[in-house]
Amino acid sequence: MRIALGVQYDGSAFCGWQSQPHGKTVQDELERALAEFTQTRVQTIVAGRTDTGVHGLGQVVHFDTALDRTDFSWVRGTNAFLPPTVAVQWAKPMSDDFHARFAAFERTYYYVLYVHPVRSPMLSGRTGWAHTPLDAQAMRDAIACLIGEHDFSSFRAADCQSKTPVKHMHQVDIREQGDFIHFRFRANAFLHHMVRNLMGCFVAIGRGRHPPSWMADVLAARDRKAAAPTFMPDGLYLAEVGYPENFAVPAPHLGSMPWRAVWADSDSIRND
Amino acid sequence: MRIALGVQYDGSAFCGWQSQPHGKTVQDELERALAEFTQTRVQTIVAGRTDTGVHGLGQVVHFDTALDRTDFSWVRGTNAFLPPTVAVQWAKPMSDDFHARFAAFERTYYYVLYVHPVRSPMLSGRTGWAHTPLDAQAMRDAIACLIGEHDFSSFRAADCQSKTPVKHMHQVDIREQGDFIHFRFRANAFLHHMVRNLMGCFVAIGRGRHPPSWMADVLAARDRKAAAPTFMPDGLYLAEVGYPENFAVPAPHLGSMPWRAVWADSDSIRND
Repeated sequence: MRIALGVQYDGSAFCGWQSQPHGKTVQDELERALAEFTQTRVQTIVAGRTDTGVHGLGQVVHFDTALDRTDFSWVRGTNAFLPPTVAVQWAKPMSDDFHARFAAFERTYYYVLYVHPVRSPMLSGRTGWAHTPLDAQAMRDAIACLIGEHDFSSFRAADCQSKTPVKHMHQVDIREQGDFIHFRFRANAFLHHMVRNLMGCFVAIGRGRHPPSWMADVLAARDRKAAAPTFMPDGLYLAEVGYPENFAVPAPHLGSMPWRAVWADSDSIRND
Repeated sequence: MRIALGVQYDGSAFCGWQSQPHGKTVQDELERALAEFTQTRVQTIVAGRTDTGVHGLGQVVHFDTALDRTDFSWVRGTNAFLPPTVAVQWAKPMSDDFHARFAAFERTYYYVLYVHPVRSPMLSGRTGWAHTPLDAQAMRDAIACLIGEHDFSSFRAADCQSKTPVKHMHQVDIREQGDFIHFRFRANAFLHHMVRNLMGCFVAIGRGRHPPSWMADVLAARDRKAAAPTFMPDGLYLAEVGYPENFAVPAPHLGSMPWRAVWADSDSIRND
């Protein structure tokens, strides 16, 4: 039987998602917990292999098992063996043609940026930080050139394993709220460090170091050296993974995200 | 010269505020950072000695120094030597009759409670958690008996060092927002574990284990055994300390608190 799980985690506690011989990763923790709960070895396939420090709100994995458990038993049973920094949010039996990675047609990332002269201890690891004001409208003026299908090589990390640098960016939104600027990125898939490299360029434009039109120049260069330095991972969240409707994958539970209200009026995120 | 500092910290990283021979405390970190910045020994006096796991948003300290620095130099210079989990928010020279502890006439605490069947990794250490629904109106009906001057012995930890169990509760508010229930407590001062013990009773009433009138019975008993178990510290924040206006103590910067909007329309917290 194929089971899909919705998983949330605090990425600041981990060396990213993917299992490593010498690192503490979310995959290692989850597979260890599933092994303890099922008393069998369980191998998981993930929708998005998030990087060190990047958080999961709407991460999705699948695995195959001979065990028959109720949906909430998978949730409660696995969580009993997970640390406070990881939790399964939902579980659902899926047909064999469901694949957490290859069935996904869209990933949505949030970036939360705290803008204030003094850093905040409660937000450490949970938001990016800019200590000088940023021009949000200038950043918004840099969005249009990114929408659609493009070669995103300028925003690609050297060790990226994607077969192609061509991705389809569906939507980028920037909203201000109090001391925060919220970013939302929706694409069919993302290259390694792509959102963090885009954030580096948005922040450079917000600071006035480059005009909004610079984003198009960076994109056209297809050269990582053309872009700004990779921005800190602290404020980056994998918020949602989109699958064809016939799989009826449960929506991520975003209610635990204190900033939820920022995007709550938007119809591009399903309500849960 | 007497200097007052506004300090924020993530209490989940510390064994409380007060310096200890064998514990990592906020006071130790702050005094070490001040010593590194000033190259002299600095002793601080704090408004509220928060317990293990309790967070500071509006903590206030004072110390005496011969050094003359600009206000923001104290902030930036001290923060350079502090870990990500502690940060000075403001600094201000004060007259010699200012005393962070004895000049304070009011402390305000927030308690943030996440109510959901499944725990949230991003909120771990930052909010309390109730996995079953709570009746917020029943909890609100239990507030009235607490307001005013009372002997709060029933909510007092065995090792409390306060001279008297009699405190004046100015205000208690309970508000629901999404998956959260927000509590606010304002009193001239609090006994050791007092808010956590009150929270234990509120949650017991919210779960329907006791009627709202039970709170008055617990209070009247003046006996710790009459109350519910001490509730987890995770969602507890020292939000503000009240001083006479002539000291012109800066308001705490609460904008970094994601849930700020809950209390933003309330005139009992000064705007910053």
